[in-house]
Amino acid sequence: MVLDRREFIRNSTLAGLGVAFFPNQSFGSSIKQKLSIGFIGMGLRGMDHLMNALERTDIQVKAICDIDKERLKLAQDLLKEEGKSPALEFGKDEYDYRNLLELNKIDAVIIATPWVWHTPMSVDSMKAGKYTGVEVSAAMTTQECWDLVNTHEATGTHLMILENVNYRRDVMAVLNMVRQDVFGELMHFRCGYQHDLREVKFNDGVHAYGHGVEFGEKGFSEARWRTLHSLKKNGDIYPTHGLGPVATYANINRGNRFVSLTSHATKARGLHNHIVEKGGKDHPNAKLKWKLGDIVTTTIDTANGETIIVTHDTNLPRPYSLGFRVQGTKGIWEADGKRIYIEGEAAKAHRWEDADKCLEKYDHPLWKKFSEDAEGAGHGGMDFFVLNAFVESAKRQIAPPMDVYDAAAWSSITPLSETSIAEGGQVQHFPDFTRGRWIKRRPYDWIKDTF
Amino acid sequence: MVLDRREFIRNSTLAGLGVAFFPNQSFGSSIKQKLSIGFIGMGLRGMDHLMNALERTDIQVKAICDIDKERLKLAQDLLKEEGKSPALEFGKDEYDYRNLLELNKIDAVIIATPWVWHTPMSVDSMKAGKYTGVEVSAAMTTQECWDLVNTHEATGTHLMILENVNYRRDVMAVLNMVRQDVFGELMHFRCGYQHDLREVKFNDGVHAYGHGVEFGEKGFSEARWRTLHSLKKNGDIYPTHGLGPVATYANINRGNRFVSLTSHATKARGLHNHIVEKGGKDHPNAKLKWKLGDIVTTTIDTANGETIIVTHDTNLPRPYSLGFRVQGTKGIWEADGKRIYIEGEAAKAHRWEDADKCLEKYDHPLWKKFSEDAEGAGHGGMDFFVLNAFVESAKRQIAPPMDVYDAAAWSSITPLSETSIAEGGQVQHFPDFTRGRWIKRRPYDWIKDTF
Repeated sequence: MVLDRREFIRNSTLAGLGVAFFPNQSFGSSIKQKLSIGFIGMGLRGMDHLMNALERTDIQVKAICDIDKERLKLAQDLLKEEGKSPALEFGKDEYDYRNLLELNKIDAVIIATPWVWHTPMSVDSMKAGKYTGVEVSAAMTTQECWDLVNTHEATGTHLMILENVNYRRDVMAVLNMVRQDVFGELMHFRCGYQHDLREVKFNDGVHAYGHGVEFGEKGFSEARWRTLHSLKKNGDIYPTHGLGPVATYANINRGNRFVSLTSHATKARGLHNHIVEKGGKDHPNAKLKWKLGDIVTTTIDTANGETIIVTHDTNLPRPYSLGFRVQGTKGIWEADGKRIYIEGEAAKAHRWEDADKCLEKYDHPLWKKFSEDAEGAGHGGMDFFVLNAFVESAKRQIAPPMDVYDAAAWSSITPLSETSIAEGGQVQHFPDFTRGRWIKRRPYDWIKDTF
Repeated sequence: MVLDRREFIRNSTLAGLGVAFFPNQSFGSSIKQKLSIGFIGMGLRGMDHLMNALERTDIQVKAICDIDKERLKLAQDLLKEEGKSPALEFGKDEYDYRNLLELNKIDAVIIATPWVWHTPMSVDSMKAGKYTGVEVSAAMTTQECWDLVNTHEATGTHLMILENVNYRRDVMAVLNMVRQDVFGELMHFRCGYQHDLREVKFNDGVHAYGHGVEFGEKGFSEARWRTLHSLKKNGDIYPTHGLGPVATYANINRGNRFVSLTSHATKARGLHNHIVEKGGKDHPNAKLKWKLGDIVTTTIDTANGETIIVTHDTNLPRPYSLGFRVQGTKGIWEADGKRIYIEGEAAKAHRWEDADKCLEKYDHPLWKKFSEDAEGAGHGGMDFFVLNAFVESAKRQIAPPMDVYDAAAWSSITPLSETSIAEGGQVQHFPDFTRGRWIKRRPYDWIKDTF
């Protein structure tokens, strides 16, 4: 997608094309002291971000947007409670967010809307020159992945995918270990989203969890929009919580890249069974044929010869787990069971050790520094760090730790896995969203105590 | 492969073609009281079986075969120690086993030789009318898989694949749970062979483990032959320890079947690194290019809509694990971490429980009955059960629990994964070794206290 030149100049308040090719360099010498943010989407996730933003002294919340007036009111109430000025309100229709984007006084935007809006809103936001933070996953189709990349490259505006799991304390300690070569040469990874979402996908239209078997227009919160993806699509529809950390370990788009994948889905049973069990076999939803296989298994080959197994498993009874494994020539870590084996360091050959000691020893500098700030920030503190990285990157107008190429590559699992499954498991090749520059793009410097 | 009719009649001492189509039915009314067995291959594994055989009162060891005279002597010494008559010796050349097979007084044969001999010897053994037990894996190529099936169908002679892990106590308890519908409708399985074999693949030609980096003609025991497979092939070269139990859970070939797979291999580093570390970078073996990717991931689709992830991981430092997972619509079990979650039975929603209580509750009738006999039988007692099933099936001349179709289907992972990897992950379709009969073949009755 090539932007109209005039539109580009009008919308791009900061950057020339050049910045896209030096994405890690600071643009301009000054760091903004205060960042003015607009929030698009004031659902549960948007409110999480708003609450965390209000803990900071360097953020001004200038505008909020939601098509649901009740959500706007909740957000305004929160601002008031915290002694802040009311924010400008948007949301009179689904495209009113564009008016928010026109505001000159806004530097950055956080998008926490239903998935199908992530890319269109991100594209508009980058065109408007707003430093853009988008919730996961960033894109639904391969074309959308390209839309994000192309818009970034045409406008010079940065986008950050707000993958909070990259900031989980054990995930970051293991990143520290990876960078210090504790695992040796990296070989194999496992990860995924294994989370029984049956009570998220269905509710009674009032309560978020634990009641009813409605969804879509009769549902509340995520059930209003998320569940339709399970009805209509068969693929890994939510890949980034697992894949983000692994992609970071493996320096994807920075000396490495995803090359190809194959995907396999089981039959679909869990959602139908849930409806019948909770709503009775005569409930109208019991007639629906769910397209999403209950467990979707994707295996990725990387340019550097690693493999990654990514799991999507949200319709069956099971405890939560992102199922991380990192395996190299010197050892292996598994999040499940919190266990580790490092050759030469383990007390006994061929015997697991508890990972706690290692995770403490390699605790990430960011966690050492900010663990108190992170407390209570949601999802075990990760939400503090992901917002912090976004804000600090935006204040400097530099590329974020997880940039538009990451957003595109990680999100592209969804359409590629759909095609692979539809073709009976046939191998699919990843587009190279860096246009060949992955061979020289340098790894992001994750091991630091700033952000 | 169609046998010459005369050869068929000459070799087939027991069966007409009919038996192949009623494989679970007893042939003849009498149960042999004593089974005369010939052993082909007196290496470490063959000696395991011999030792366990000598614990039984219903086995007569009539003949032994090995091309290594020292191994024959070890076997004869063992017979003498146990107060048995000496066995006839074979092994003057690689084909002398055929003379063992000509012995009329032998009812059954146990084959524990290097992998490339498994199918040729099994085919010859079935042609000679001997009830055949073959160690894992049974076949190296798709044609070999067919050779086993075709020979069975042409001769009516049975073959059992001696997969001992099917008899592991937790594996059998979980089988009991599967049959009692504890997991609900089965959806997804994981399994594999994750075993650091570096000190098995290399030694000093004298000791089995822990010394030297030689293999092939300069190696001892498994290093003499097993290691070459890692040098020359890239695929899942040892799939059955994981897949045998899972195939049994899923009733593969008995109302279900493997439909297709895709496989992915990492780069090969572990064996080279091991040679350099233990033998120095100037050791001649440090120049070798190893073909086997250190971790091979295979995902299988079944006719009933389940998926199975099979892992092969033998070249890197790591604790041993077969990595079992069984997941259904009602719950999930994982061997790693010994954990289980069954909806409605778990004390807390979304929380793992220790599997011990369940494994005890569903302890398999065979283990309840034979646990004392199994003690000390090797590999935690499993070896007792696999030999017991072989002997009892052979005494009755009936199809064994793990038959020639299982041997073919499970072993076919090796050639199919090789092709998939060579083709960059392309999907491969399984031959239907049952020639369509899987739709009506009845599940084997595993839950009984006889064998």
